[in-house]
Formats: sequence, structure tokens, C-alpha cells
Amino acid sequence: MASAMVANGDLSAVKFPAPATGRVAAVYSEVQNSRLDHALPLPSVLKNSFKVVEGPPSSAAGHPEEIAKLFPCVFGQPSTMLVPSQLGEFPSGQSLKIGVVLSGGQAPGGHNVISGIFDYLQNSCKGSTLYGFKGGPAGIMKCKYVVLTPEYIYPYRNQGGFDMICSGRDKIETPEQFKQAEETALKLDLDGLLVIGGDDSNTNACLLAENFRSKNLKTRVIGCPKTIDGDLKCKEVPTSFGFDTACKIYAEMIGNVMTDARSTGKYYHFVRLMGRAASHITLECALQTHPNITLIGEEVAAKKETLKNVTDYIADVICKRAELGYNYGVILIPEGLIDFIPEVQQLIAELNEILAHETVDEGGLWKNKLEQQSLKLFELLPPAIQEQLMLERDPHGNVQVAKIETEKMLIQMVETELEHRKQRGAYKCQFKGQSHFFGYEGRCGLPSNFDSSYCYALGYAAGVLLHSGKTGLISSVSSSIFFRIQSFLVGNLAASVEEWTVGGTALTSLMDVERRHGKFKPVIKKAMVELNGAPFKKFASMREEWAINNRYISPGPIQFVGPVADRVNHTLLLELGAEA
Amino acid sequence: MASAMVANGDLSAVKFPAPATGRVAAVYSEVQNSRLDHALPLPSVLKNSFKVVEGPPSSAAGHPEEIAKLFPCVFGQPSTMLVPSQLGEFPSGQSLKIGVVLSGGQAPGGHNVISGIFDYLQNSCKGSTLYGFKGGPAGIMKCKYVVLTPEYIYPYRNQGGFDMICSGRDKIETPEQFKQAEETALKLDLDGLLVIGGDDSNTNACLLAENFRSKNLKTRVIGCPKTIDGDLKCKEVPTSFGFDTACKIYAEMIGNVMTDARSTGKYYHFVRLMGRAASHITLECALQTHPNITLIGEEVAAKKETLKNVTDYIADVICKRAELGYNYGVILIPEGLIDFIPEVQQLIAELNEILAHETVDEGGLWKNKLEQQSLKLFELLPPAIQEQLMLERDPHGNVQVAKIETEKMLIQMVETELEHRKQRGAYKCQFKGQSHFFGYEGRCGLPSNFDSSYCYALGYAAGVLLHSGKTGLISSVSSSIFFRIQSFLVGNLAASVEEWTVGGTALTSLMDVERRHGKFKPVIKKAMVELNGAPFKKFASMREEWAINNRYISPGPIQFVGPVADRVNHTLLLELGAEA
Repeated sequence: MASAMVANGDLSAVKFPAPATGRVAAVYSEVQNSRLDHALPLPSVLKNSFKVVEGPPSSAAGHPEEIAKLFPCVFGQPSTMLVPSQLGEFPSGQSLKIGVVLSGGQAPGGHNVISGIFDYLQNSCKGSTLYGFKGGPAGIMKCKYVVLTPEYIYPYRNQGGFDMICSGRDKIETPEQFKQAEETALKLDLDGLLVIGGDDSNTNACLLAENFRSKNLKTRVIGCPKTIDGDLKCKEVPTSFGFDTACKIYAEMIGNVMTDARSTGKYYHFVRLMGRAASHITLECALQTHPNITLIGEEVAAKKETLKNVTDYIADVICKRAELGYNYGVILIPEGLIDFIPEVQQLIAELNEILAHETVDEGGLWKNKLEQQSLKLFELLPPAIQEQLMLERDPHGNVQVAKIETEKMLIQMVETELEHRKQRGAYKCQFKGQSHFFGYEGRCGLPSNFDSSYCYALGYAAGVLLHSGKTGLISSVSSSIFFRIQSFLVGNLAASVEEWTVGGTALTSLMDVERRHGKFKPVIKKAMVELNGAPFKKFASMREEWAINNRYISPGPIQFVGPVADRVNHTLLLELGAEA
Repeated sequence: MASAMVANGDLSAVKFPAPATGRVAAVYSEVQNSRLDHALPLPSVLKNSFKVVEGPPSSAAGHPEEIAKLFPCVFGQPSTMLVPSQLGEFPSGQSLKIGVVLSGGQAPGGHNVISGIFDYLQNSCKGSTLYGFKGGPAGIMKCKYVVLTPEYIYPYRNQGGFDMICSGRDKIETPEQFKQAEETALKLDLDGLLVIGGDDSNTNACLLAENFRSKNLKTRVIGCPKTIDGDLKCKEVPTSFGFDTACKIYAEMIGNVMTDARSTGKYYHFVRLMGRAASHITLECALQTHPNITLIGEEVAAKKETLKNVTDYIADVICKRAELGYNYGVILIPEGLIDFIPEVQQLIAELNEILAHETVDEGGLWKNKLEQQSLKLFELLPPAIQEQLMLERDPHGNVQVAKIETEKMLIQMVETELEHRKQRGAYKCQFKGQSHFFGYEGRCGLPSNFDSSYCYALGYAAGVLLHSGKTGLISSVSSSIFFRIQSFLVGNLAASVEEWTVGGTALTSLMDVERRHGKFKPVIKKAMVELNGAPFKKFASMREEWAINNRYISPGPIQFVGPVADRVNHTLLLELGAEA
């Protein structure tokens, strides 16, 4: 059996016609290799001739009158949907000049969005040019780009990472920066720009669309929903790409740790997961793996819980489990947990203030500046966390909450609480905590089949939207109301790719305003975990059972072939009503 | 497409006929589920009738005369090999009473060893009973067991973890403990015992074999090579089970982190990997992923490197990469690194001594008790590491090296070194380190196809050996010299399962003695990374290329179906001469 002679992570280089930049002479594993030629299905509407139909004018997620003032040119645009049509709408001879940019943190599937728009242009707009702006929005401002060719794109098909053109966190905000973007658009004679990013980047995309239109530039701007955090979504955009893959990678690791916990029988594993603003990742991983305890930031905030409440809750479950003979368990914690605890926010605000103006004396006299409640909380914290709060500060002097190792903090606090209970005779076991943080491992994995197909369709759809002259929309591949009714509330992202609907949603319809420095700033509201949404309700209905009994599930590694390969995540299914 | 409606990590319970203990009402993911009925191939010699042939008498790995004295009954036994034979050797009617025990840390595949011996008994020794001793060797001493039935075993087939009967770290050492084991053997009328464990546990198995034979008990004892660390191997036992799966899981994560590093372009990821005694895991992961820097403990020790040498080496590569425009990278570090650094061993020995007898004064006068070189090293260490050295102590008062976060220590030391170089103008970038520890995630994953098949064959072979009356052997599924010649130095663990050879190797042939408390103690020498072995040489020939250029490979998640599913690791292939 000759095939058995090849090792995992094959050392032989893939011989693709690579250009002088990019993944030149990249060495691919067999799995990476097998993904290169993975055939991507397209929604059937994209495979035949179609036309673009428009819905009613749109409004905004909040304060429409303010959004209308901020976006006089693009506000109120209808959402659009592609529908089959005998007559293809667009002149097939037309060639376009399009730019594409990756903005913000990585998410599995970004390369496929670019492949998608590239293939659309190749198939439907022969002679088009696709410019990849390098290093994020800064690439637009500095007109730093690479012309994308089939050979350049090929090695990135269905591959993780953002390294085809890399990303960046700059924003196009000031008048000078908008001017630079205009100059680039003019210099390259851009018909359109695709901005692949999260909520901020899509807000920025819309400002750019507004700006270009107000200056009578022909350059259209379309956004694309990217974030593993899953907090950029709405009715028409049922999920952001990368969430599916990242959750599956984290769930694989959690499942392994669960099996370890059950086998060893003596550790409590505290697992911190990415997701600073919203707890979708933690919730999804809980639905996939059934941990004993799951903390959801949004619930902690809604119930106005204190750190003591959270600690007690964990200690309660541990004591109850100890009575049943289980001295082990798994606890999931969202990265942003402490941001959701009102008293911690208060303490951090006070610390930021004090540390900006006072010198911190070793004797601790500075602590007298803290409000009583904050002082009490500060004294409750383990010394290592106190130190992190004092030392880890960003360039603006603010405490860097993301750097606080919440899982280690909770282990220490729970340990102290259990020690007290032991002294009272309420706990008899020995508590041993193990901490984990699953973060970077999930951002750049090979995209799941779902993310591969979803991203490809998003990119393809963005091509259609730009081709049809649309601007200020976000590419939407989704379930439609119509489809829902026809198929009994089964959202079609959960159905086969062929049945997916394709269109664009007005970015302004996702927006509200926030008051900053006395001005209204448009923002796409982050989609938080809804406590009356189906995913949280399903979790809430099962968590007591999971806490006491051991209902661990080990999802295993992502499979790319076989019957399991096309499964999608619970959050999406539940939100689409496809899973009871 | 109805199948698309099922989510990853299916919530529906598997309906298997579960007994009142074990994975009762376990909820399985689809991947777990699909593994339950994964058909395991058997080496062809096991599928037809065979006989057991013996080689020449064996010796020991060192000090044979001392080993002979310690094992008068079982020393010198020949290794055995199964060969096809028209006449089946064993009376098929014979039923046996066999015990099985898991010893030490988890490794993927343990459940399959048990399935293997169970199926052998079912197929060839009808009416046999398999006792699973619970919680490791303590289960033998306390006669705590479960009778394994088809229904009990089924939910664990091809599943990770050790929870079928759980494991433990107790040893059978004292005369009283041996007595307890004898009592259990007599009480259950055991014909044989299978000990699944690492080097210590297999030494223990051999002592038990010797003891039972010396007492004229009929109970035979066979060992089985288990450890993800890969440091239990020899000519006849080419690898320990679990190593393949664990390395693949770690390599998946490392590959993801590499893609992230390349995409982000601003972080050095310091990844600590399991493997305290030997660096096989780190070496294998390096061969699978091509990191920029890989530290191999055995090399550090052989070259008598200091912590400063190691720090400088990392800083050198970082500076060279900075000149080429790369301000990112990935560095692999074996868990046991600092154990390999002579000066650190010296420092720890002195600290153990001092802290046992002196009080540590805040002023630091205690430090005067350190030798000059140790003091210098201590002062070089980051404060957090100094603190760990002072605080984290085991019950015997010794520093717990495994708890020292080597990756964080190196980040701080490299940071300081680069700061100095910056001041000299020799480094101009900004260094940002990110730390990772991949440990528990790998110990309990779903076993790869290789580990699934290998373990099943190991268990099946153990059944044959016990049935044929052997004792004091370790189950060996391997390549044979004969096969090597016939197939041009292609070891057959890398070939298809059908061609694997099956036998048993005298445990005493793996042993040497160590002098402890004035007595000779038998030990199975840990197999360290050989600096003139094929895996290290391959790595050494490529690491300069990997350091400077980016040759990252992302192996991706373990696949269970498709062309990639049956690949084996590089270490095994290289050691068998199957990969140039």
C-alpha cells in the first residue's frame, strides 16, 4: 500500500505556478493540498442567469433620522436579492476594476471571499482586474496593492489565514485619509471596493461608500461580514464567517479536555475562549460539548452579578458534584467576562483615573482613593490579578482587560472560597484547577466546508453587487422569509448550498448612533447573545443537567470529507429555527 | 439535503445497550459516533491460524548480570513472533480469566488495546472472562474490577480517554503490595494480566511476572507500550501508542498558530509541548510543521548549553529574521527543556537544599548560600520565574520543574536580550511574544487511524501471548528484519496493517539497572532523541532553512476518512528507514 508510506504533513512541495510574492514555494501538508482543489458548490441562483430585485426602502437599527443625516447619499437603500431570470441582466462584455481589502483580525474563510469575487469577475466580467490592497485599509490609503491573478490566488483556495494580502487595523477616518482613499480610487480607476471586516470595518465601508458617492466617484463599496466572534449578524446576515470554523476548533479541544477530565477524575479545567464583546463562541462551544459550567457574559450583566456571585455559583456546582462523587469538571469562560461585571467595570474605571494622576505608594495608601465597594473588590482579587490590573496598561494608560487571565483569577477565587467551605465542613474534596486559553489556535485554521462555501458565495455575491452598480450594501448569503415559509421555518444556510439565497443588505439598516465627544457616530451594533434567543434558551434548559451529570460531547477534529463534513453550528441552526 | 440539518456535535444520544456503569447514556458527537463502528483491520497473521516461534535467548539493555539476578525466573527469555501455520496452535476450547489495567497518564488508543484483547478472547477463547481493574494498579491491589462485556466495551471503541476503567499512578512495590496482587490473582483465578503503561509500569509488569512465577502462580503478565511522549521504544517496539495522535493534534494547533503568525506579522509564538523526559513530541511536531526555531532538550544537554546560550540562539534568529523583514515566528519548546540545562539542574539542586534548611529572608541574604554560578543564573531569571522556583514545590519540598512556564520565561529573557541589542543598534524591531502550552488537549483526543489499529493489534497480540502461556513480555507489533529485507528497508508499521508483524519482546531485554539507595533497581531506559538518529538528522539538515525562510506547514485536523486518514508520523517512518 504505497499510499501508507506518506507521512502526515507531507514534506513534498506543491508544484503550483507561484508568482514572485505570496506563498512562493510554500510547502503544504496533504490536508492543505487536498483542500486546494476542493470543489465549491455555488447557490443555484448564481449558476444560471439571474436579475437583481429590490425590496422596500430600508431604515436603521436605531435613530434613523440621525443615520439619514450621516449618510445622505446611501441611507434608505433597499435590500436586494438575486432571483432567477431568463434574461441575464448584465452585459457580459463589461470589464471592471475592483479592489479588495481585509480588515481586522483573522477569520477562517477570508481567502475564499477573495477567490469568490475573483471567480465571479473571471466568469462574468472578462478582462477585469482585481487589486488586493495589502495590509488592510492602510493599503488603500497608501495605494499599496498586488494585482491578483489565477496563479496568485490558487495556493490560498480553502486555506486559513489572511496572508494572501494580509490585514490591518487602521481606519479611514480623517478627511485626509478619505482624500487618500479617493486618490487611490481615482488612480486605479476603481469601479468598486470590497471591504472584508467586522462591525467597525463595515461601518467604515459605508462611510467610504457615502464619501465616494458624495464626490461623484464611480467607485462602489460593498462590505462582507467577518468575525470569529459571531457578533456581526442580523436578519439578512445570519452569521459572520469564521465563527463556524473557530467554534469547531475550540470545541475539538474542549471535547479532548473533557475526556481527559473524566479519565483523570481530579481536575477542574477552566477554559477561556475568545469573544471579548459577546459570548457567542462560548455559548456555541457549550452547545457542542456540554460543559458542567458555562458563563455567558450577557447573562452576568443582565443579572447584575458580582464577581462573588460568579465565584459562588462555580463553587456551588463543585460542591454539589463532590457530593455525587465527581471531583472534576470543565468550565467555559468568555474572554470578556469581567467586562460584563458592573462592579469590575467600576473598579477599572477608578483605577484608570487614579493611576493616571497618582503615584502608587508601596504602603498602599493610594487605595484610599478607591470607592469603598471597589476597594472591597480589589482586596478580594488574587495578588497576581491585582498586579495585572496595576501593570498591564495600553498606550492610553487604560487597563488591558483582554490581558487579564480571567480563568486563572477564577481558579484562585474558587480555591479560596472552597477553602472556606472546607473549614465549615461544606466541602470535603481537594480542588485542583487547570487553566486553558484557546485563542490564536482558532483564528487561522483551515476553514470548515461551511465557511469555505459561505465565504465563496459571499465573495461571488459581492462581485454581482458591484457589477450591478450597488454601493453601501453588505453581501448577504442567507435564508429569506420566502424560503422560510416554503420550507417550514427551515433557514436555508442550514440547507444545501444550492438553495442559499443571495443578495445585499443596506449597511445603514444595521446602524445606530453613539454619542462620542459630543457628536453622533454611526455604529453597527454588535449582536450580543440574546437571553430570549433560541441558542441561549436551549443552553439554559440543559445546563443544570450538564452541571450535575456528565453529558460531555467530544466533537472531534473537523472533517473535510465524509458524512460529517458539511455540518453547521448549533447557533446558526437554532437561530434559523431548524433545530428544536 | 436532510443530512445538512444536523449540527456539529449532534445532540441525539447514541442508543447502545449500555450497562449500569461506564458511559451510560453518553451523548456522542457524530464523529465519535462514526468511530464506534470504524472497522479495524488486523495484521494478516492474526486473521488465519498461526504458531508462536521463538528467537534466541535475550540479554538486557545494560548490566545483564544484575538484571539476571533481579529476574531469575524470567530473564533471558527469547522474543517471540507469530508466523502463519496450517495448524492452529492453541486449543480453541480453552477459556481464560484475564485481567487488564491502565497505568499512568492517558494516551489515545488505550480503549482499543482493551477491545483488542477482548475480541481475541471472544474469538479464540470462548467463555473467557476479562476483568478490568479500576483506577490503575490500585485496582489490582484492592481487587476492584468490572467484568468487561461486549455491551460495556462497545461505547469505547476507537474513543479517546481512559475512562472505561480509568487509570492510576500507584505502583506495586512493597512486599505487602505484591502480596495483595497475589491475593487478587488467586481470588479471581487469573490466567493472565495485561498491564498497559509506560516505562515504569512495564518495569512493574515484569516484576509482577517474576513474582508470580517465583510463587508458582499460573498468572502470566504481559505489558503494552503506552505513552504520548514516545520515549518507550526499541528495535522490536518501534513506537508507543498515543504518540501519533497527540503529535497530530499538537501539530494541527501549531500549524494554525503559524498561519496566524504569518498573517499578523507581528508576534513570536513560543509553544511549549508535552514531553518532560524526552523531546520526541517537539521533534515530531517540528518535522510536521517546520517552525523557525525548535529546541531539543537532548541537544541542549549534549552541547552543555546554558540558558544564556539558548536565549542568544533565539535572539540571533529573531535578529536575522528582522533584517529580512520578518518580525514574527514560531518557536517550539519541550516541556522538560530546563531539566536538560546543566546549570539549571545545579541551581535547582542548590535551591532544594537551601530551602529545606534555611529560612528565606526578604533581604535576600539566603542567596549567599548559592554557588557563584547559580547565583548569577538566578539573578538572570525573570522575577516571576524566580518566584515559581521558590514557591512551587512538591510534597517532598522539591522544585516542580513541570510547573515552570518555560515558554514565558524564555519570552522574558529574549525580550531583555533584544532590548540590549536594540540599545547597541543590533536590533530595530519591536519584539512581541505570545505563549502557548499544548498539553491536555492531546492526551485524550480520538485516536488516529494509526493508533486505533496499532492499539487494537497490540491488545489482540497480548491475548495471543497470554493464551500461549508467555509471561514477562511486552506486546510487539512491529517491523521485522525479514520484512525489512524483503521490502527494501521499509518497516511494516508504515505499510498496510495486513503486513504488520506480531509478537512479544522480553521485558528484561529492555532493562538496565540504576543504583538507588545503595541498591540496584531495574529500569526500562527511556528512549531519548538520538542526535545521530534519522529524525533528528533530518530536522538538523533543514532547520536553518526553516529559521530564515518561512516553510511553515499546516497539517490541519486529523482526518478519519479519505486519502489522508492512514498517514503515520515522520519519526516512525524515518526510524524505519521508510522516508529519506
